[in-house]
Amino acid sequence: MSRNLPVDADRIAEDIDALAAITEEGHPYTRRAFSPLFLKGRAYIEARMKAAGLETRIDAGGNLIGLRRGRNPALGTIMLGSHSDTVPNGGRFDGVAGVIAALEVARALEDQGTALNHNLEIVDFLAEEVSPFGVSCVGSRGMTGQLPDAWLGRTAEGRTLHQAIIDMGGNAGVLARQSRPDIAGFLELHIEQGPILEMEGRDIGVVTAIAGITRIEVTIEGRADHAGTTPMTGRADALVAASQLVLDIRQAATSLGTGRATHFTATVGEFRIEPNAANVVPSKVVLLIDARAELRDDMLTFMRWLDETAKRISDDYGVSVLPPVTISDNQPTPGHPDLLTILDRAADSVGASHRRMASGAGHDTAWIAKVAPAAMIFVPCKDGRSHSADEWAENDDIALGAAVLLRATLAMDELLPTLQENRNGTHTR
Amino acid sequence: MSRNLPVDADRIAEDIDALAAITEEGHPYTRRAFSPLFLKGRAYIEARMKAAGLETRIDAGGNLIGLRRGRNPALGTIMLGSHSDTVPNGGRFDGVAGVIAALEVARALEDQGTALNHNLEIVDFLAEEVSPFGVSCVGSRGMTGQLPDAWLGRTAEGRTLHQAIIDMGGNAGVLARQSRPDIAGFLELHIEQGPILEMEGRDIGVVTAIAGITRIEVTIEGRADHAGTTPMTGRADALVAASQLVLDIRQAATSLGTGRATHFTATVGEFRIEPNAANVVPSKVVLLIDARAELRDDMLTFMRWLDETAKRISDDYGVSVLPPVTISDNQPTPGHPDLLTILDRAADSVGASHRRMASGAGHDTAWIAKVAPAAMIFVPCKDGRSHSADEWAENDDIALGAAVLLRATLAMDELLPTLQENRNGTHTR
Repeated sequence: MSRNLPVDADRIAEDIDALAAITEEGHPYTRRAFSPLFLKGRAYIEARMKAAGLETRIDAGGNLIGLRRGRNPALGTIMLGSHSDTVPNGGRFDGVAGVIAALEVARALEDQGTALNHNLEIVDFLAEEVSPFGVSCVGSRGMTGQLPDAWLGRTAEGRTLHQAIIDMGGNAGVLARQSRPDIAGFLELHIEQGPILEMEGRDIGVVTAIAGITRIEVTIEGRADHAGTTPMTGRADALVAASQLVLDIRQAATSLGTGRATHFTATVGEFRIEPNAANVVPSKVVLLIDARAELRDDMLTFMRWLDETAKRISDDYGVSVLPPVTISDNQPTPGHPDLLTILDRAADSVGASHRRMASGAGHDTAWIAKVAPAAMIFVPCKDGRSHSADEWAENDDIALGAAVLLRATLAMDELLPTLQENRNGTHTR
Repeated sequence: MSRNLPVDADRIAEDIDALAAITEEGHPYTRRAFSPLFLKGRAYIEARMKAAGLETRIDAGGNLIGLRRGRNPALGTIMLGSHSDTVPNGGRFDGVAGVIAALEVARALEDQGTALNHNLEIVDFLAEEVSPFGVSCVGSRGMTGQLPDAWLGRTAEGRTLHQAIIDMGGNAGVLARQSRPDIAGFLELHIEQGPILEMEGRDIGVVTAIAGITRIEVTIEGRADHAGTTPMTGRADALVAASQLVLDIRQAATSLGTGRATHFTATVGEFRIEPNAANVVPSKVVLLIDARAELRDDMLTFMRWLDETAKRISDDYGVSVLPPVTISDNQPTPGHPDLLTILDRAADSVGASHRRMASGAGHDTAWIAKVAPAAMIFVPCKDGRSHSADEWAENDDIALGAAVLLRATLAMDELLPTLQENRNGTHTR
C-alpha cells in the first residue's frame, strides 16, 4: 500500500515501536495499568503530546489528556482516544494503536495549520484492560461518573484502587461527581481483535455496536455410577448431557450470528466435571456461557432458548439441568448513527474500503457512549489474534485508520453543531 | 423371602454386621488394605474360620486362607473366596459378602457333617481394591505368580509394598515363584455393583466373563480465539469437537452394548479443557475413555471406530484430534464353561432365578482364572450402588447366593475329576 495520506505513517510506527520497547523483559508486550512500566509508557506519550503542542493533564479518573484548544470552546470537545495499558504478555497494538492514531490526528492538524472550532482532546484512558484490581475501563468510567464506588475499596498488590488512581495522578475522592457534558463527539480506533477485515481484505470496520455481554452459568446434575457395571442405557451421565448442550449452544449461536447483518456469539469457555475419575460416570458438570449480542433482542431470544433447552436436555438425558443462572448481563452499546455516517464518508474520502460491523469485545467507547455521541473504527489485525505476543497489525493499516479519524474529526468539527441542533429538536436520548 | 436354605442366613448377617462395625469412625465402611483396621477385620474372620473348624494360614501373597481337608487331597483344592478390604467410605458388602458366603459354605458342610473329596479353601484375598500403593488384586496375583516384580518397590505411607505384604504375614521375597497348580476350581460370590438383577427381579447372575478394560486418552487441539470477536463459523473450538466425540462414543458404545447378549460400555470419566477462561474459545481438551468389553472383538471394533472418528471430527470441526493413545489394555476373562453350567444348575436346585451376565468391574477371579477353572456369581445390590456408604445388599439375597455356592461346591466335588479328565483328552487351555 502506498497511499498519499494526510497523516505520517512513519511517526505512528515510531511511537508504537517506542511503546513496545517499554515492556517487562521476557514478557512482550506487558505494560499493566498502575505499574511503573505503565507510568514510563505514559511519560513517553505525554512527551509526544507536548511535542505536538498539546496541553497535557491527568483528570480525576487518572486519564492522560492532551488538549488542543479550538476557536469556539463553547461548542464543546471532540475527543479521540483509547488506552495504553496491556494485559500480561499481550498488547503491542491493542489500545496503543488507538492512542497513537488519535495523537497523530492532532499532529497532522498542527502540521497543516488547521484550527478546529471545537476543543480537541487526545485521551489515554486509565486501565481499560482487567487490571490486578479485577475490573476494567476504570478511566472511561471514572471520567464520566460511572465508576461504582465499591470498586475504589478493592485492593491489589498492597493498595486500594482509590490509592492507585491517586498514584496515577487522579483524584479518586471526587470521582462520583465527575461528568463531561462538554463532549460533543468521541471516536476510538482499535484493532479488530477478530479475523473479518483481514479475511475480507477490507481496510476499516465502522462499528455499529459494542456487543452486550451476558455470562450464564449452567449446572448439570447426573448420577455417579460405576463406569464398568452400569449399562449405557441406564445412566444419568452429566458429561453426555453437557456435550449435547455445548453442541446445541453452538448451533443456536451460529443461527443467530451467521447469514444476518448482526453479531452474535456464544462460547462455553469454562467447563469442569465431577468427580473426574476414570471409572466413574460423571455426576456433575458446571459450565459458563459467554454470550455476546449486537442486538438486545437476540440476547433475549438466546436466553429464552437456553431455558427451554435446559428442560429438554433434562428430559432427553435423564439428568437435571438446573435453571441457567445469569451471572452478569450488559446491554449492547450502539454507535451513534450520525458518527457512523461521518465515519463511512471519511473512509471513502481517503480511499479506504470499509464495512459496518459489531465489536464483540468491550471498549472504553461503551462508557463514553452513555454520556455523549460516540463511535469507533476497527483496523485489521493478523489472524484475529490479540491479547498475546503474536498480536499484529500492519502500520499502513493503522495509518489509514488514523487518516479516517482525521477526516472524521474535520467532519465532526463542521457538522456536530448542526446535528446537535437537529437532535435537540427531534430526538430524545 | 423365606426359603428353607441349606445355609444359615442369620450367621451370615452376624458376620457382615460385625465387619461393618470395624470401620474408620465417621467414614463407613472403611477398612483399607494394609491398615490396622484391616488387620482387625481379618482377626475377626480368622477367629470365625477357626470356629468353623478350618485350619488358617497366611500364604506368601498375604492372603488369609482357611483350609478344610478333603478325603482325597490329591484331587486338588476347591477354592472359594473374595476380599475383605474396602475402598475409602465404601464397601459394606463389596468383597465382604463373598468372603462370608464362602465361609458359610464351609460352616454348612461342617453342620451337615458332609465330607468333601477335595480340599476346600476359603480365601480372603489381600488388597483387591486399589490400595494406597495404587495397584489392585495384590493377593490373587501374588498367590499365582502374577504380581509384577516392579510393584513390590512401590511405596506408600512410609513403606514399600514388599514390606507391607510382610507386615500382613506374607512372604514377598518368594512371590515370583508362587503357583497353585492344585486349584481344581474357584468360585467367587460378589454383589453385582450394577442395576440389572434388581431391575429384572432376579436372584443370581452367573458371570459369563469379566470384561476387558481398555483406557484410551484422546487429545483435541483447537485454537484459542477471542470469544467475543471470533465469528461462530471461523472457530476451531476444542470443546465443541470434544462434545461431538463424547456423544459419538456414547452412541457407539450403546450400539455395541445394548440389544445384544454381550456387555460393552464406554465412559468419558476424565475431561479437562484449556485455557478454561470465560472469554477464550477452548484451545485444548484432553479426555480419558474407559471402555469395557465382554468380547475382545467388540473392543477391537470400538478401537478401530475411534481412530476413524478422530479423523472425521478433525475434518468436521477444523480441529486436530490426535491419534487416540491406548494407556492400558486388558483382555476379557471368560468364566469356565463347565463351572457356568454347574452354577446354573446349583441356582435351579435352590430355586434361585438366574441369568447369564458379564461383569463390568474387575475381580480376583480374573487372576485365578488365568491358572485354573474359575467363575463367579453376582447377587443383587440396591440401585447398582457400590464403593459408597449407601451400598446395600439384602441379607436374604446373599444367603441365597451362599446356598448356590454350597450346591455348586458339592457339584464340583463330584464332577471336577471327570471334567478334568475330559478336558485333558479334548481341550487345550
